[in-house]
Amino acid sequence: MNAPAERPPLPRELADALAASFGSRFSTAAAVREHHGKDESSFTPMPPDAVVFAESSEEVAATVALCHRHRTPVIAYGTGTSLEGHLLAIKGGVCIDLSALNRVVAIRAEDLDATVQCGVTRKALNAALNGTGLFFPIDPGADASLGGMAATRASGTNAVRYGTMRENVLGMTVVLPDGRILKTGGRARKSAAGYDLTRLMVGSEGTLGIITELTVKLYPVPEAISSAVCAFPTLAAAVRTVIQTIQLGIPVARIELLDTLAIKAINRHSKTTLREAPTLFFEFHGSPTGVKEQAETVQGIVTEHEGQDFEWATRPEDRSRLWQARHDAYYAGLGLKPGCRALTTDVCVPISRLADCVAETFADLDAVAADLQGPLVGHVGDGNFHIMLLTDPEKPEDLARAKGFASRLAQRAIRLDGTCTGEHGIGIGKQPYMALEHGDVAIDLMRAIKRAIDPENILNPGKILPPQ
Amino acid sequence: MNAPAERPPLPRELADALAASFGSRFSTAAAVREHHGKDESSFTPMPPDAVVFAESSEEVAATVALCHRHRTPVIAYGTGTSLEGHLLAIKGGVCIDLSALNRVVAIRAEDLDATVQCGVTRKALNAALNGTGLFFPIDPGADASLGGMAATRASGTNAVRYGTMRENVLGMTVVLPDGRILKTGGRARKSAAGYDLTRLMVGSEGTLGIITELTVKLYPVPEAISSAVCAFPTLAAAVRTVIQTIQLGIPVARIELLDTLAIKAINRHSKTTLREAPTLFFEFHGSPTGVKEQAETVQGIVTEHEGQDFEWATRPEDRSRLWQARHDAYYAGLGLKPGCRALTTDVCVPISRLADCVAETFADLDAVAADLQGPLVGHVGDGNFHIMLLTDPEKPEDLARAKGFASRLAQRAIRLDGTCTGEHGIGIGKQPYMALEHGDVAIDLMRAIKRAIDPENILNPGKILPPQ
Repeated sequence: MNAPAERPPLPRELADALAASFGSRFSTAAAVREHHGKDESSFTPMPPDAVVFAESSEEVAATVALCHRHRTPVIAYGTGTSLEGHLLAIKGGVCIDLSALNRVVAIRAEDLDATVQCGVTRKALNAALNGTGLFFPIDPGADASLGGMAATRASGTNAVRYGTMRENVLGMTVVLPDGRILKTGGRARKSAAGYDLTRLMVGSEGTLGIITELTVKLYPVPEAISSAVCAFPTLAAAVRTVIQTIQLGIPVARIELLDTLAIKAINRHSKTTLREAPTLFFEFHGSPTGVKEQAETVQGIVTEHEGQDFEWATRPEDRSRLWQARHDAYYAGLGLKPGCRALTTDVCVPISRLADCVAETFADLDAVAADLQGPLVGHVGDGNFHIMLLTDPEKPEDLARAKGFASRLAQRAIRLDGTCTGEHGIGIGKQPYMALEHGDVAIDLMRAIKRAIDPENILNPGKILPPQ
Repeated sequence: MNAPAERPPLPRELADALAASFGSRFSTAAAVREHHGKDESSFTPMPPDAVVFAESSEEVAATVALCHRHRTPVIAYGTGTSLEGHLLAIKGGVCIDLSALNRVVAIRAEDLDATVQCGVTRKALNAALNGTGLFFPIDPGADASLGGMAATRASGTNAVRYGTMRENVLGMTVVLPDGRILKTGGRARKSAAGYDLTRLMVGSEGTLGIITELTVKLYPVPEAISSAVCAFPTLAAAVRTVIQTIQLGIPVARIELLDTLAIKAINRHSKTTLREAPTLFFEFHGSPTGVKEQAETVQGIVTEHEGQDFEWATRPEDRSRLWQARHDAYYAGLGLKPGCRALTTDVCVPISRLADCVAETFADLDAVAADLQGPLVGHVGDGNFHIMLLTDPEKPEDLARAKGFASRLAQRAIRLDGTCTGEHGIGIGKQPYMALEHGDVAIDLMRAIKRAIDPENILNPGKILPPQ
């Protein structure tokens, strides 16, 4: 728990003011700071100097305004499930824990939208929607908070059909770096009224503002849902199936790829008995006939590519078990090598480049890092896949090799017209690829925007934009 | 053609440099300037001091760089079909006509995307897609350029199913105010890599950058399409039909409302024989059974609300005629009162507020401006509708009354949680509602962004943000 040399101590006056305002909801205890100085990445934790447990937008605003007066960094904390070091207090400062902002403010079934405080998790929102006939589709692996999901432009398995947080946030309440409270967007489904501040905040990773409330789109629970699992003789055959399905415009709700190693991990972790081979998980949403029709078309494509055992899960409990197993793939992967840390990649490429990208990536993995183990899971309908590299924390050379592999993969995706991150965000982990992906002019423009909105650089400093 | 007093003349040195670079593609002729100083709004034209006809991103960049050196305003011109005074040279300067940037750069059928120069119109893109099995759905009334459509965050009749320009631009080439060329986004379907510069530029109306190239999403031409027309006893019954259709989550591709007056105008202009009553136009996209199923469900809702004459247009030529008539509604409306000008409104509200908004609006129209005539057409699946007020240019009191009505309508929509503009943009026409809709903090933030990106305020000055 070393503080970097550059890091000034928390100003005494600020600590006193926060303690006076928040009482026991202000803490400098080591355990609390440690808990808030890490995420699920393999980066070494860097605790903040203090943690405030806020309970309203106004409390967040008051905390930020105080920190602003002292030029002290502020980091927003949701569920701690980010994957690129987003939460590390690399310049110290105050962490604001937002988990108590967990109120579902309004569900407007007639408008297919809901307003929630930022700490509401995706599962909590869906629980609150129970009985309304509506659901919220965005589902990153973790049960993340909606504020955090917006801040990292998260997506998940349903994005191929329902979009990402980019498409699903209608409006937000955001605390600006000087403590003012901004409202963005609204509830109209579309608007052409000025600069799109909502989309500017979505994906800004707490560097431009702290999202405290958001209005999101909801969708009717489909009349019929069916899921299927299908094993393939090779990864390439599975990938070709995905490409053809997307190119035909079949509105699949989910189409997920898992390689043999990922299936092994899942079987072990979730007590499933899936055939240990490259596998696609499908889900179809629609009317009963629509679902049947989609499934039949896809089954035809599957057969063409020698898919086997097209197995249905139509009962809700079987479907839940299947998708729970898919969502637990990250934890299942960790179980392959007890005590390991995971370095997770997140490239996304145009669908026509997916087969090449996967093939080159596996060739690289075989050549230099096969012993690390790297299960693949992916939202391949969007061209997005993850390889999780399992490294032994006792062996620094493991991490070095994993990093080399991840770096080549990020560069490969960019070369193939894709991105180094489909849904995890930049944090500190993907900064080395920002200029390669966007070019210097775009990076300059992002810096100009950051300076204009946060001239003192107090909001989550050192994230997204690479050091100059 | 009066120049405002504040407006400095075009610097001689700049004019000489542009003439030297562009030869006959640089013009200060009165007719050319007049043509480029107006759009389809009812605002008094304000011509620029000169027009450059650019043919590449590099030529746009060179022109902007020259203007930047002289602190001279630059206005981008596509097809001149904007509706809020977007193109008026209110501070003089140089207009860049982009219509010659009309090349379809690439169609990538396998990735469902295309890259086009900004001057390609929506119809030209769809013509180029002929035979690929793909189409581009966004369809504002005019055959606008894709660059202009991105700049104003345009949408149209298909937005309820396919989204607006906000959801359909993957990446762009943009000339910045100092003449640098920016690339935003990419071709991956999703990305979490830093600030969303693409969405910042979409809807920025040429005030942050000039879009010269863009990559847009394409969609498979549906296997089956069918359209239907249905008349209702009252406008309220038609609106309730829309609300119920949306709330049930039926994936209609188009659902358009026209009031009795709009139908009259269309019958006269397009030689159609539609029953002169409040009417919904529907379109369904999908598989043959899917389309049939959607249509049957909607037909049930229509019957519940006493809709009559549910009439199918399944033959492609009948469908085309129907939608062409709908697209020509603006020109049809103008035909109701020869020699008139139109003042068009563009509010958008949450669907639950649509019935109230329409009812209050018609009560207002009846009370104060019935003699002006105001046909209603609307993309009501999104909660967006237009009333076009026909004013006699010889009667200034007409325009004053129309403006009063439009102002009350904009404020009403904002009060009902909606926006003063669903798809036309702000230009100069909707500036009075910016602070009411967004609040002072958001306006301050938009100003900070404008200052950061265009500190000299040379790009389309005086648009979007109200004067301070």
